[in-house]
Amino acid sequence: MPAYPKSAKPALIIGSVAIDRVATPTAQSDNLLGGAASYASIASSYFAPTRLLGVVGGDFPKPFWKRLQKHGIDLSALQVDQEGQTFYWSGKYHENFSGRDTLEIRLNVFEKFSPLLNATLLDSPFVMLGAIMPALQNQVVDQFVAAKKKPYVLADTFDLWIHTTRAELEKLLRRLDLFVINEEESLLLTGERNLVLAGQHLRKMGPKSVVIKKGGHGSLLFHKDGYFSISAYPVTKFIDPTGAGDSYAGALIGYLASVNRSDFAALKKAVAYATAVSSLTVESFSVNRLSGAGRKAIDARLKELIEITRI
Amino acid sequence: MPAYPKSAKPALIIGSVAIDRVATPTAQSDNLLGGAASYASIASSYFAPTRLLGVVGGDFPKPFWKRLQKHGIDLSALQVDQEGQTFYWSGKYHENFSGRDTLEIRLNVFEKFSPLLNATLLDSPFVMLGAIMPALQNQVVDQFVAAKKKPYVLADTFDLWIHTTRAELEKLLRRLDLFVINEEESLLLTGERNLVLAGQHLRKMGPKSVVIKKGGHGSLLFHKDGYFSISAYPVTKFIDPTGAGDSYAGALIGYLASVNRSDFAALKKAVAYATAVSSLTVESFSVNRLSGAGRKAIDARLKELIEITRI
Repeated sequence: MPAYPKSAKPALIIGSVAIDRVATPTAQSDNLLGGAASYASIASSYFAPTRLLGVVGGDFPKPFWKRLQKHGIDLSALQVDQEGQTFYWSGKYHENFSGRDTLEIRLNVFEKFSPLLNATLLDSPFVMLGAIMPALQNQVVDQFVAAKKKPYVLADTFDLWIHTTRAELEKLLRRLDLFVINEEESLLLTGERNLVLAGQHLRKMGPKSVVIKKGGHGSLLFHKDGYFSISAYPVTKFIDPTGAGDSYAGALIGYLASVNRSDFAALKKAVAYATAVSSLTVESFSVNRLSGAGRKAIDARLKELIEITRI
Repeated sequence: MPAYPKSAKPALIIGSVAIDRVATPTAQSDNLLGGAASYASIASSYFAPTRLLGVVGGDFPKPFWKRLQKHGIDLSALQVDQEGQTFYWSGKYHENFSGRDTLEIRLNVFEKFSPLLNATLLDSPFVMLGAIMPALQNQVVDQFVAAKKKPYVLADTFDLWIHTTRAELEKLLRRLDLFVINEEESLLLTGERNLVLAGQHLRKMGPKSVVIKKGGHGSLLFHKDGYFSISAYPVTKFIDPTGAGDSYAGALIGYLASVNRSDFAALKKAVAYATAVSSLTVESFSVNRLSGAGRKAIDARLKELIEITRI
């Protein structure tokens, strides 16, 4: 567990913790630690004290538990429903990773998940809402409002919510500091193919800042003080993209928490760190590379990113 | 016509000069100045003295001639076949510019085009071979070899040549200093979808350096001294992509000629200028925006590019 800078504030990660089975075009692996909150909290833990709010079943493997603990993640809010089974997801990526199919999904204990925040969690100044149902994301924000707390809130989403609960998602957008979305979801939500216009459009929907992720082409940051475009880290050993977006968002909130800032300069640096961190995630199944890499590998990739993009 | 820096050497552009008809998903325009060498020579002319080797017919409109002259381009090697008609191309872009169809192509005088270099042209230290037949591109290099000249040679290509005259193209690749290719052509030529690996693969095929263009996602430079990744300029008024790649390559060779260098640092700067220049090209039909923008607009975009990509 790293020593955090003096400026570091706690980051709260809320989302799914899962057991995954993943098939890529060339390999497959099962009984994997998965779920947005697992990836995000490990990523965040490299930068700031990190708390995880989620739920698992009695079947949640001890090694997964230990893996999260190894990163110093505060798991006191990781609920364990002893009678239930952990959220299970099985997916298969298309040829060339051009898309993926969900083969099987069992919500299990996640079906009844209700993110209730105690006083400690309500004191978190930086919060990431993983791509859970927008109604639940709003429920979290409601609790902060009721407690008269104003944390910096980042949220992720995914296409299903845009299709099925758009109104609730739009309500959430008006309450966000930072919204992170990928290229396809951005098109779905805005109808705008030009990503520069799409980012501007998304900001008008409410979030103070927006990040559009373009996978292997990098990402774009839209902030009131400017626009920032970052290339991807040049990954050559691409194994499995699962969790790339989650670890990207986790590194974002973790870095902001570590410097206790959210201005444009801090956000640019956060986006750069997020790019470095997610490039590690895709180099293995599950959190293996992300968890094993260590902060030094992340810093080395950041340095390399700065180098290869400097005009 | 700009004052060139003292270091500037002449750049020679060889390729097609055409009359185009272009249909985009929202508009169309005809009787346009087109052809790779038109776009490339105007782009190059912003940086260095530029010579154009090509051929037109007796129908080549006077305003087009004047447009090229306005940029100070040396047209003494632009052959005029009074009996013939200028190369004509008509194309239609698909919805969202996801591809394009050639509706009509009349090679006309371009069919018999043979790039013969006189002593002055053979003295050009920087040369761009537009995407003409690889046999003709090789014929140009042969003339330099016969004259014991070793200019810096950049070449472009397009998918048709990869399909139809691959052996001749592969011969050319072994003779190049810089090869510029887009993402789809790179996949076709290398079979490699990972662009980092594709760039490395392409360099093994011969060119000292390689640039892979990713359209709205920027471009990648592969050089023996390093790798460079640049974002696209954030274009919001996208009108017509025709000539974007040609003006990109023209700006590349023009900038290198202007500083009379081809080291990694110079190439990075050239790629950045090429990015700025081609972002102007797509903001109008034909060369209108490219020609009208002026060097100040290009420098302003370069400055903006540096700003929006600085980590």
